[in-house]
Amino acid sequence: MDIETPAALIDRRRMAGNIKRMQEHLSSLGVRLRPHVKTSKCIEVARAQQDAGAVGITVSTLKEAEQFFAAGFGDVLYAVCIVPDKLDRALALIRKGCALTLLVDSVAAAEAIVAKGKAANQKFDVMIEIDSDGHRSGVRPEAPELIAIGQVLQAGGATVKGVLTHAGSSYDLDTPAALQALAEQERALCVRAAERLRAVGIACPEVSIGSTPTAIAAQHLEGVTEVRAGVYVFFDLVMSNVGVCTPQDVALSVLTEVIGHQPEKGWVIVDAGWMAMSRDRGTQRQKIDYGYGAVCDLDGNPIEGLIVSGANQEHGIVSRRDGAADAGVVEHFPIGTKLRILPNHACATGAQYPAYLAVTPAGDATTWPRFQGW
Amino acid sequence: MDIETPAALIDRRRMAGNIKRMQEHLSSLGVRLRPHVKTSKCIEVARAQQDAGAVGITVSTLKEAEQFFAAGFGDVLYAVCIVPDKLDRALALIRKGCALTLLVDSVAAAEAIVAKGKAANQKFDVMIEIDSDGHRSGVRPEAPELIAIGQVLQAGGATVKGVLTHAGSSYDLDTPAALQALAEQERALCVRAAERLRAVGIACPEVSIGSTPTAIAAQHLEGVTEVRAGVYVFFDLVMSNVGVCTPQDVALSVLTEVIGHQPEKGWVIVDAGWMAMSRDRGTQRQKIDYGYGAVCDLDGNPIEGLIVSGANQEHGIVSRRDGAADAGVVEHFPIGTKLRILPNHACATGAQYPAYLAVTPAGDATTWPRFQGW
Repeated sequence: MDIETPAALIDRRRMAGNIKRMQEHLSSLGVRLRPHVKTSKCIEVARAQQDAGAVGITVSTLKEAEQFFAAGFGDVLYAVCIVPDKLDRALALIRKGCALTLLVDSVAAAEAIVAKGKAANQKFDVMIEIDSDGHRSGVRPEAPELIAIGQVLQAGGATVKGVLTHAGSSYDLDTPAALQALAEQERALCVRAAERLRAVGIACPEVSIGSTPTAIAAQHLEGVTEVRAGVYVFFDLVMSNVGVCTPQDVALSVLTEVIGHQPEKGWVIVDAGWMAMSRDRGTQRQKIDYGYGAVCDLDGNPIEGLIVSGANQEHGIVSRRDGAADAGVVEHFPIGTKLRILPNHACATGAQYPAYLAVTPAGDATTWPRFQGW
Repeated sequence: MDIETPAALIDRRRMAGNIKRMQEHLSSLGVRLRPHVKTSKCIEVARAQQDAGAVGITVSTLKEAEQFFAAGFGDVLYAVCIVPDKLDRALALIRKGCALTLLVDSVAAAEAIVAKGKAANQKFDVMIEIDSDGHRSGVRPEAPELIAIGQVLQAGGATVKGVLTHAGSSYDLDTPAALQALAEQERALCVRAAERLRAVGIACPEVSIGSTPTAIAAQHLEGVTEVRAGVYVFFDLVMSNVGVCTPQDVALSVLTEVIGHQPEKGWVIVDAGWMAMSRDRGTQRQKIDYGYGAVCDLDGNPIEGLIVSGANQEHGIVSRRDGAADAGVVEHFPIGTKLRILPNHACATGAQYPAYLAVTPAGDATTWPRFQGW
């Protein structure tokens, strides 16, 4: 491949396999898949997910909502709690025809939505975030505030579209049993929250759960209507350590080139530093620490034991994970050698690039833009 | 300030103070300052450095060279060893009139430059990278290869413009004595390398050293012609821990907004996650670990003991560094409260944004674009 380095490559065959696997699994469990497009921020990737059967998208910023709506994605769930300041921007998008669903986890935010809805004569679609594992946001399914939020929204003229949770603590697990248990906890607690709302006369039609590991681990999804997952489209080394993919499934890699050596130390210096890989060190606390990434040959086959052990802005240090110094690094990896690096975290690595290069098995590369900012 | 969050703010008064301090220090030591623009990737920031007396710029990518040359910066040092694949792109820039200096640390790369120079009838300006502290690239000042590289370049028709080193291990230090010792080591070893080249008839007019900590710590710079430094223009929490600035000097901050709470845990949830802060955890192994950043009020005054202790893509968890749970977080930081977060590493945080907002003491904000990619 005659591509300038560093570059973010998408292996289209692997990506298609990842999309098919998740879609078939969730379809077999009788739920819709609403992919989280924060991973790719790329229209072409989301279209491939949609073409495989996904319904609607999940976004993490209003810019994502705007960009994807402009590209024809009309059913958008903004899965971060909205603050009053951002309601005008959300409203503008709805007025353009976007079916945008908002999220809240507090009475204060619900009241702000209601006030804006009345002032603007707009019936907002709103979901309530449930905390199913204590890792971040949301109200506990048994909290009195859950009912209070629902009542504020319903009484104020908003539509309580449903409840939503994200068992993000699944990233800390690495056994099938633990993942299945968390998947069932995520499902059961979110369904329980919906039942509490329904018991006080709030319809709550949607029950939306998901994270890539729990989505894959789920054995049944009774009471759930949709699953959200993002990183599965590319997978990465963190997901490999969690146990829901292998390094051979990872569809995103960074193409890099050897620019120098420190032979006594067994170091190969490459032009993929942290700007190219991101600063994400998500495998640091997992069972295999890959440094800043796992080194593969140009065809994407992992070179056993070789990682990016250190990174400056535009320099990566490639060495053996066991610390052994290979005295033959200059001969094995001469200047100009091209390598591919699998990332710890596909969402973070992708974000370093204005575009991906999507590569077919035949080697044809197409530029797929992605966007940056808020 | 009516600014959508998250946003990357530059405090122009602080930035001007940082620029003045470094320029005056290096001018007093009788050397030129060639700022590293990889920190800002922003024309307006580099112009402020130039206006204060800087001579030329340092870049880490050819895209930086191209972008800054197009904006009128004609004297550019590309301070990452060049590989054969990138010579055509460098040549194209030189042919447009850019005084571009290249870098090598191997005979193989020197030979590639010589071959390209002969084929293209171009006399390249080249510096040789010296390893003065073992942290990354470069040849040791006493290595036979140093002379071999110089001779390959000179015999092949390239100009050996000088020697260059970067004592990047200064980031691991935190006492004035250790910093001064490393600054002297960086100076002495780079000067020694130049002397070895001169002794075999290679003129080597330039001796270029630098990192922000060693530049500040240097007591004298005999034999040095120029110093390179980058992060000093903004400073950050890593530099504060190293001891070369205070948090009150940090000119880059992220404006964020409170989007929720977990009151039992004392957590405030903000809309600055790792996408807004970067994944850089550079203070993790330093004397004060600031998590993903130090929390300040809207005016930029640090709120003692409050940090971003956790981060997901678009969620930051603000809590006390000592782990104590403040039961009054909802009242102290209601939804919609705006805060400013000082970053661990200004180069990494800036890279997450398509533009900065440069703010004057009067509160006027101007958009200063920055660029992404290679």
